Amino acid sequence: MNETLTTILEHRSIRKFKDMPIEADQLDLIIDAARSASTSSYLMAYSMIGVTDPKKKEQLAAISNQPYIKDNGHFVLFLADYHRHMVTASREEKQVIATNVQSTEYFMIATVDATIAAQNMALAAESLGLGICYIGSIKRDMDLVNQLFDLPEHVIPLFGLAIGHPDERQEIKPKLPKRAVYFENSYPSDEEQFTYLQQFDSETEAYYQSRSTNTRSDRWTQQVIQNLHNKRNDRLTPFVKEKKFNNR
Amino acid sequence: MNETLTTILEHRSIRKFKDMPIEADQLDLIIDAARSASTSSYLMAYSMIGVTDPKKKEQLAAISNQPYIKDNGHFVLFLADYHRHMVTASREEKQVIATNVQSTEYFMIATVDATIAAQNMALAAESLGLGICYIGSIKRDMDLVNQLFDLPEHVIPLFGLAIGHPDERQEIKPKLPKRAVYFENSYPSDEEQFTYLQQFDSETEAYYQSRSTNTRSDRWTQQVIQNLHNKRNDRLTPFVKEKKFNNR
Repeated sequence: MNETLTTILEHRSIRKFKDMPIEADQLDLIIDAARSASTSSYLMAYSMIGVTDPKKKEQLAAISNQPYIKDNGHFVLFLADYHRHMVTASREEKQVIATNVQSTEYFMIATVDATIAAQNMALAAESLGLGICYIGSIKRDMDLVNQLFDLPEHVIPLFGLAIGHPDERQEIKPKLPKRAVYFENSYPSDEEQFTYLQQFDSETEAYYQSRSTNTRSDRWTQQVIQNLHNKRNDRLTPFVKEKKFNNR
Repeated sequence: MNETLTTILEHRSIRKFKDMPIEADQLDLIIDAARSASTSSYLMAYSMIGVTDPKKKEQLAAISNQPYIKDNGHFVLFLADYHRHMVTASREEKQVIATNVQSTEYFMIATVDATIAAQNMALAAESLGLGICYIGSIKRDMDLVNQLFDLPEHVIPLFGLAIGHPDERQEIKPKLPKRAVYFENSYPSDEEQFTYLQQFDSETEAYYQSRSTNTRSDRWTQQVIQNLHNKRNDRLTPFVKEKKFNNR
């Protein structure tokens, strides 16, 4: 075991932060961590916007009614970004590129690039004693996020990262056991998976009943099946396409 | 600075590995690191397949003609996965879920979940002195990957991770500077971005001319513009849809 492994294994999402900003040199370090990320074909098809403007933070928080989007030490919005690549291209090059990047493949590449950078930032922050929470719920109103930051074509928000000094300490939430997510050389049968998931249901049921706050009667499969019944936001698909992603 | 930050900031991709497997207890640690990842709505919509079968590794390596896909200590394939969520669902629930998860949003969620887990595994491996390289080029023949692992509907390969004992030490590749990827409260103008990218071009030009192996005359914008002229694989978009992702 080493410090990096401990940081990774001790992760829990933090949703309550002390009312203090993160220090400038810590901010620089976590930005450098994000910048150091692996990237597909050296494209670095992502950007970050640090949001400190209280009005913008309030509007972001209102999208999902989650106070920790505004009440934190820092908030970073992660974007898929092929706009930068066009800034120095000739007009002819721009036309070709603007078409190509609308494929599913380039959509995946930008999403993966942004996420690797984000997880570097998350772990860097946690290694400094800060807490983090990924904010996927900005997807509930992408038009508003787009408008708040006046994003050009070929740039879409993906998720946010709330960062700050933790003002809570949650238990670590149980995760799917090794044999349920990691397979060797072939994908397992439904029967095998069923067994593993039933065992995980017992584990999560015990967790929800014994945790120190917000105890309830629940288990993993019940929770995710309920969740996946949720159609989510019908505007997301057309929004992504209007912004010139995922059209081909 | 701490050990985790050093691990993150010292990242370079490794494409030449010693001919030795990674130890079983190290493998367990890096799998645990992946499993500890943040996940959207507790869905854990990803799986991993560790590939040790030499025939399968050879076929994967042949897709992109990259020997380090087979010549490494370990190879892990990362999958977007909503199949598991249906294994315990009733028939009625399955129908609803099978439709819902075909949205752009659920495609993004699974891709992000898998990538956070992958980057945890990558950093865990690097913290143990191992080297890693993300393998995006499996996307050149997803049908073959799909067939090799007999993946059910609602499961697609995203990328691989080659891991092992490094048999090379590359320089760290320059990354876009802070002001080119991290903005405050608003997205920058094209003029601003143009200036930053020109400066980065000078930096990358110097890097390519001075590095210890494979020196050449190149700069970032030239390289990525050329890259984005590449249409990539036309089969990827229909493949993803046939596997019941990204249809709505």
